[in-house]
Amino acid sequence: MSETLSASTRPAARVEGSVPVAPVVRGLSVDEASAFTDLLVASRTASLTLAAAPTQVKNSALRGIAQALRDNVTEIVAANTLDLDAGRAAGLSAGLLDRLTLDEARIRSLADAVEDIEQLTDPVGQVVRGSSLPNGVKISQVRVPFGVVGVIYEARPNVTVDIAALALKSGNASVLRGGTAAENSNRVLVGLIQGALVAAGLPAESVQTIDPFGRAGATQLMQARGHVDVLIPRGSAGLIQAVVTESKVPVIETGAGVVHIFLDDSANASWASDIVHNAKVQRPSVCNAVETVLVHEAAAVRLLPGVLAKLAESGVTIHGDAAVREIYPAAVPATEEDWATEYMSLDLAVRVVTDLDDAIAHIRHYSTGHTEAIITNDIVNAERFLNEVDSAAVMVNASTRFTDGGEFGFGAEVGISTQKLHARGPMGLPELTSTKWIVRGTGQVRA
Amino acid sequence: MSETLSASTRPAARVEGSVPVAPVVRGLSVDEASAFTDLLVASRTASLTLAAAPTQVKNSALRGIAQALRDNVTEIVAANTLDLDAGRAAGLSAGLLDRLTLDEARIRSLADAVEDIEQLTDPVGQVVRGSSLPNGVKISQVRVPFGVVGVIYEARPNVTVDIAALALKSGNASVLRGGTAAENSNRVLVGLIQGALVAAGLPAESVQTIDPFGRAGATQLMQARGHVDVLIPRGSAGLIQAVVTESKVPVIETGAGVVHIFLDDSANASWASDIVHNAKVQRPSVCNAVETVLVHEAAAVRLLPGVLAKLAESGVTIHGDAAVREIYPAAVPATEEDWATEYMSLDLAVRVVTDLDDAIAHIRHYSTGHTEAIITNDIVNAERFLNEVDSAAVMVNASTRFTDGGEFGFGAEVGISTQKLHARGPMGLPELTSTKWIVRGTGQVRA
Repeated sequence: MSETLSASTRPAARVEGSVPVAPVVRGLSVDEASAFTDLLVASRTASLTLAAAPTQVKNSALRGIAQALRDNVTEIVAANTLDLDAGRAAGLSAGLLDRLTLDEARIRSLADAVEDIEQLTDPVGQVVRGSSLPNGVKISQVRVPFGVVGVIYEARPNVTVDIAALALKSGNASVLRGGTAAENSNRVLVGLIQGALVAAGLPAESVQTIDPFGRAGATQLMQARGHVDVLIPRGSAGLIQAVVTESKVPVIETGAGVVHIFLDDSANASWASDIVHNAKVQRPSVCNAVETVLVHEAAAVRLLPGVLAKLAESGVTIHGDAAVREIYPAAVPATEEDWATEYMSLDLAVRVVTDLDDAIAHIRHYSTGHTEAIITNDIVNAERFLNEVDSAAVMVNASTRFTDGGEFGFGAEVGISTQKLHARGPMGLPELTSTKWIVRGTGQVRA
Repeated sequence: MSETLSASTRPAARVEGSVPVAPVVRGLSVDEASAFTDLLVASRTASLTLAAAPTQVKNSALRGIAQALRDNVTEIVAANTLDLDAGRAAGLSAGLLDRLTLDEARIRSLADAVEDIEQLTDPVGQVVRGSSLPNGVKISQVRVPFGVVGVIYEARPNVTVDIAALALKSGNASVLRGGTAAENSNRVLVGLIQGALVAAGLPAESVQTIDPFGRAGATQLMQARGHVDVLIPRGSAGLIQAVVTESKVPVIETGAGVVHIFLDDSANASWASDIVHNAKVQRPSVCNAVETVLVHEAAAVRLLPGVLAKLAESGVTIHGDAAVREIYPAAVPATEEDWATEYMSLDLAVRVVTDLDDAIAHIRHYSTGHTEAIITNDIVNAERFLNEVDSAAVMVNASTRFTDGGEFGFGAEVGISTQKLHARGPMGLPELTSTKWIVRGTGQVRA
């Protein structure tokens, strides 16, 4: 968990209508719990309006949000500065402080992203399948919003805007827990979003933050079965694991990627080198970056020197097994832990395997089911890899960095699901919807 | 929970290789836990073979299962008699004993159902969507099995066969907890199924029962995140609620239906009468049977006498509010509890509402989100009802009994999902699958 501010530091007085009480680390006070329930009930009520809102009304609100962001850069940066100051005082790492930062360029790019979402096709009302039954009854399965979507994330105020916009476009009310570390930024952003919603004729409660309730609010959100239809955690593996195991609300698990590339005996050397380099170096801190390269023993001498030299030029540290270190002595020894590590840094584990079966067995043991790729010119091995590796995305001769909603043409992305239920892989707007069956008869009864 | 045999009565000696230990009500012994894990690992291994199995091999196994059922009626009935005797001794109700019973006719009809499943389209490998990215990379989203599907149900040995066959056709290994009350029947059925699997060249462990582990096994199954990909509870509301709240494995919630029919001002009287009668009387003990009828106050005098008289002829007890009792004095007074009750019997709650808004508000408050219908001739009200009622199936002028996989043309049904994630409404074979993204490139990297 990257969040360093404890629940006990949160300002209890922020909860409207509550009497200031002694801060508690676990659980809400009676008044807070009541205010929390009121907030969720207001989300449900707003969701009913949103579900019926025409696309043009939702689009008008999205344009208003983009405009409000551009018009209020100064106010957003001022609030963000408060969070950054508090973060520095609390000793947040440089990486976390960077993720927490909103400057004018980032705010303008957020506004652009909201306008991109406005341009996407509205999934609500799309007919998935349908038929006419033998008795003349017509049935059709149509996309409908989930209703209320909860999202728990960490100190990334840009996610507040992205998720609010995606949820709005898909007709969902959103309840956001963006983390105490970004509380001031999120409060201002949610205020601007709510202003744009009201100006478009939609309820302000379509987008709400529960940051003032601190961590106890996040815990409460996970218990809010019936109030919240789906909960999406975004962030560190620790955060996601906590939500997945504690939540009583259905969860869509996103994220963690111990991503593999297997260099088969017949791999094209320049493809191997370019793809591994791209998958590791282009953006090492993201979930679709490669963490382990497996190489066929018959190709190790041919491929590894070129592949690893190119990585070394970009400052990558190689963690190799004994066979790798024989070919590439600069590698540091890989431990058992390396095979299971999502480095998210310029580190790469490399292992020599005996064949495709050995590679698949390694992947089955260590993969988190995000993305795996094979580089090969052998059509049988390619098909076996695609069929036998059970991950959200399986690839032949392409960079693992392509597992991404933007790259897949979804325009924007809620996250990348690594579970098998409901959504798997990059989640776009359709993945933020459920379906309902519409049945139209003329008096038919069942025989 | 309808199961009356406690975990402490289960025969611990059934677990192969374990030393008989003192029975425990919660938790497995160390040996049992180890045997349980071995069983789940064997399911995973079998699932890898099943995922790659051609449709013709799976179909051959299904034909073998149907044949084995027909060839072993005597053995099945003998085992079932043991369960029935134990059930009678334990004081099971007549309804439960009926559900528990397998006679020759029921076994032959089970075999027919397996052959019906053999005829269904194999969902594995179906392409859901796909495209060619601007850089030439081809992506396609294809259906794949979940892997290992766990199912927890109660004393219905027919479900053992149905679920095993559906899971097999969709390429999933199944782990079945069919309840101690049906343990002998299930053991024989699973044995026959495994024989047919092996004869078709598939692993016996494709279908396994955990009944010998008793209730502690069910509890362990709910904790088996990573071993089990999805858990489906089928049965009473209590069973489903227990699984939904306790499971760490992703759950698909099925079942409970407090189903409503709203008779609008403009309802055709004969449609109203026929549909309500069909929805209540044709099979009162199932989840798509109607439990509450709401009637527009302007139509109550016109509609209720005919609707309720027809129900009375079939022995239905009416639980009415004051306005209903004025029109139909034979009604017993409805209490607050009646509006929230899934009777599953020849009882019906009836209430007069002021208008469509009042009806929708009542439904939002009391519905379990299964099925609701409006009987109307008003096109605006019909569309409002379809849009504003948030249930798995919403209907105009048709019997709620149509919410059924067989009626919808799915051939067979895993259950009816009342949740919004993954599947909603009747679940067929496609709902027993996940998807994976197949990405094919020729050396592309991300810019």
